[in-house]
Amino acid sequence: MAQPHVVIVGGGFGGLYAAKALARDPVWVTLVDRRNHHLFQPLLYQVATAGLNPGDIAAPIRHVLRRQRNTTVLLADATSVDLANRRLLLSDGTLDYDHLILAAGATHSYFGQDAWATHAPGLKSIEDALEIRRRVFLAYERAERETDPAAQAAWLTFVVIGAGPTGVEMAGALAEIARHALSQEFRHIDPGRARVILLEGAGAVLPPYPDPLRERAREQLQALGVEVRTGSRVTAIDEGGVTLAAERIASRTVVWAAGVQGAPIARSLGVPLDRAGRVRVQADLTLPGHPEVQVIGDLAFLEQDGQPVPGVCPAAIQQGRHAAENVRRALRGQPPAPFRYVDKGSFATIGRGAAVGDVYGRLRLSGAPAWLAWLGIHIFFLIGFRNRAVTLFQWAYSYVTWRRGVRLITGERPEAPAPPQG
Amino acid sequence: MAQPHVVIVGGGFGGLYAAKALARDPVWVTLVDRRNHHLFQPLLYQVATAGLNPGDIAAPIRHVLRRQRNTTVLLADATSVDLANRRLLLSDGTLDYDHLILAAGATHSYFGQDAWATHAPGLKSIEDALEIRRRVFLAYERAERETDPAAQAAWLTFVVIGAGPTGVEMAGALAEIARHALSQEFRHIDPGRARVILLEGAGAVLPPYPDPLRERAREQLQALGVEVRTGSRVTAIDEGGVTLAAERIASRTVVWAAGVQGAPIARSLGVPLDRAGRVRVQADLTLPGHPEVQVIGDLAFLEQDGQPVPGVCPAAIQQGRHAAENVRRALRGQPPAPFRYVDKGSFATIGRGAAVGDVYGRLRLSGAPAWLAWLGIHIFFLIGFRNRAVTLFQWAYSYVTWRRGVRLITGERPEAPAPPQG
Repeated sequence: MAQPHVVIVGGGFGGLYAAKALARDPVWVTLVDRRNHHLFQPLLYQVATAGLNPGDIAAPIRHVLRRQRNTTVLLADATSVDLANRRLLLSDGTLDYDHLILAAGATHSYFGQDAWATHAPGLKSIEDALEIRRRVFLAYERAERETDPAAQAAWLTFVVIGAGPTGVEMAGALAEIARHALSQEFRHIDPGRARVILLEGAGAVLPPYPDPLRERAREQLQALGVEVRTGSRVTAIDEGGVTLAAERIASRTVVWAAGVQGAPIARSLGVPLDRAGRVRVQADLTLPGHPEVQVIGDLAFLEQDGQPVPGVCPAAIQQGRHAAENVRRALRGQPPAPFRYVDKGSFATIGRGAAVGDVYGRLRLSGAPAWLAWLGIHIFFLIGFRNRAVTLFQWAYSYVTWRRGVRLITGERPEAPAPPQG
Repeated sequence: MAQPHVVIVGGGFGGLYAAKALARDPVWVTLVDRRNHHLFQPLLYQVATAGLNPGDIAAPIRHVLRRQRNTTVLLADATSVDLANRRLLLSDGTLDYDHLILAAGATHSYFGQDAWATHAPGLKSIEDALEIRRRVFLAYERAERETDPAAQAAWLTFVVIGAGPTGVEMAGALAEIARHALSQEFRHIDPGRARVILLEGAGAVLPPYPDPLRERAREQLQALGVEVRTGSRVTAIDEGGVTLAAERIASRTVVWAAGVQGAPIARSLGVPLDRAGRVRVQADLTLPGHPEVQVIGDLAFLEQDGQPVPGVCPAAIQQGRHAAENVRRALRGQPPAPFRYVDKGSFATIGRGAAVGDVYGRLRLSGAPAWLAWLGIHIFFLIGFRNRAVTLFQWAYSYVTWRRGVRLITGERPEAPAPPQG
């Protein structure tokens, strides 16, 4: 029991890989998360668009770590850090640590316009995904029963704000639902007439990708029927639609994929945060003056060669492993080592057989080869064999049939579109 | 358009089979449901116990009926029937009918003790199942963090009230979770120590089954570790547990599987209802004086050979088909024909490889043969191939590994156990 206590906050990719990396070290590990499940966020848009079930992309954290005898998983809400006393405060208790790895992730940011959240839910949790799913499929139901053409058109207009990977994936999936999944099913509307509009403030879709890939992505989105509008700044969102600088889009279903901000616990550290509320860590992932505290994943802000390390799964995984290595170094009396992100490539999927990606910044793929690579990588990294096998099976079935079987509208009565549920 | 308009209320087994049976008849069919999905209720307990995903046991109604060109599916809340004017009132409109088939089903009944609903949720909808799932797995999390032994024991005590098929299945699945699914995963509790108590007011489990099968069912439940208490009348339920005539059971997780009552729309008919709020239909399923109105499934009460026709799927399916035949008879100018329920047998599952059943009242099975028969029948009747294939696959995987992968606690923060969510 005299072994050092490593406390990890967050069971996302960063926290989970840090915990796994410490499995055989002479430490006690406690992993704290508000949720009982690890979530495979890259596939969350598939839940939002009824391609996958929530259970297909989530695994109970304590199940993943069950064989790791030095590790305890705690379902608890970590609220703040007392750096001076090396203590993590929970909403219902405290945990003293020798080493702290903060991997609490990020939430949506509406750039100060919190009222937009009601009208344009983001996509970070299972609840978010189910709420978006509910809104999307309820919109078609409403359109079917609406007799006023303008009101019907608003129900059949879907707006995605933000053309990063999540926004591109959502827009592509929404277009596929309209063109394929719902054909034959309605009597008063033609779902194929639905509009899917992807708005991006920057000048291109997938801003961080190389130029030729961005162009391929735009072409593939347009081929799916998505209206891509870059350089479009949103000035207002309300129940009836989205307002741009010089235009109003009437839409009853808006999805927010534009901004993220660091989890609130970062503010309790009393250290400098960046504009998005992320912790500015040192090159070795620690806080200045606190080599025992590391911040990783989406909650960390770190520049490398003049560029921020991106908020993607591979970066979180690499940082999680590096944080574990820094703990080991401390056990040996060594100072923490600097972290170096290795970009092995990135892929964004657009639709069935449509994707773009680059590998090690050299090999650039688009279309079916990129999509197959994307599929393989995502299945491979899905945590837990059950999910991997079941998800692949469901996917294969959906691929052959174009069906989206998980089209449940749950959580409340159809009359009143309101809070997130089931 | 001059074809008769058949309005069906409810997309459960009765309503769906009535609609399917009318696919080729010269009528217009409108199927109205508050939900967009047909639900395979016999497997709902598997969602509540994390064996299956919601999407595995539900199929969008309009997808099931998409090729049936004479049929419109409407997501709407039917509130009452105006028999005199042959009009169905929706919460947001009306539908005139020539023939009405009421298949609105049943909800829980707490025998007038509505306050019990908060502490002992029932199992009728996806939301119910997710709420029970949330409570069950949250209870283990709470127990893991609880230091007071009595409080911990209450979190590790699960009470199921009512030993009909649903109650027996729930109790068996809860016992399997405790003994197998969670082993190795906790550090401060032994989930295998959890108690599962099945309470039944009558003198035996599965009251409608033949005696030897009830005895087999009790033995199999006890072999799984379920404490079976028959002749136990519940007098109170609150947050801390269940009160019996001469005993108090401290439990934080109580599931209600005891009583059902007909959907509220039955009360708008102004016809005699039975004690459980079901419509007393004539032998031909119609209302007295209204041959154009039929009531089927769980909402109907009908005696045959001195016994009530049971509220099970095969009865609803047979009645749905019979209602369609009565509509066809009316088109030909014939009076409605009397309905006759053919009992092809019934099965109740208890756990992995454990079940009881009888076939045509002659062949009685228990143990593994009954379980395999139960599995085959249920997979066969699951609506929609996707569900059938995926569900069988998931099941096979769970069977081999004992895992319950869909153990998500979603819907709200772990701190405050409260309203049903996703």
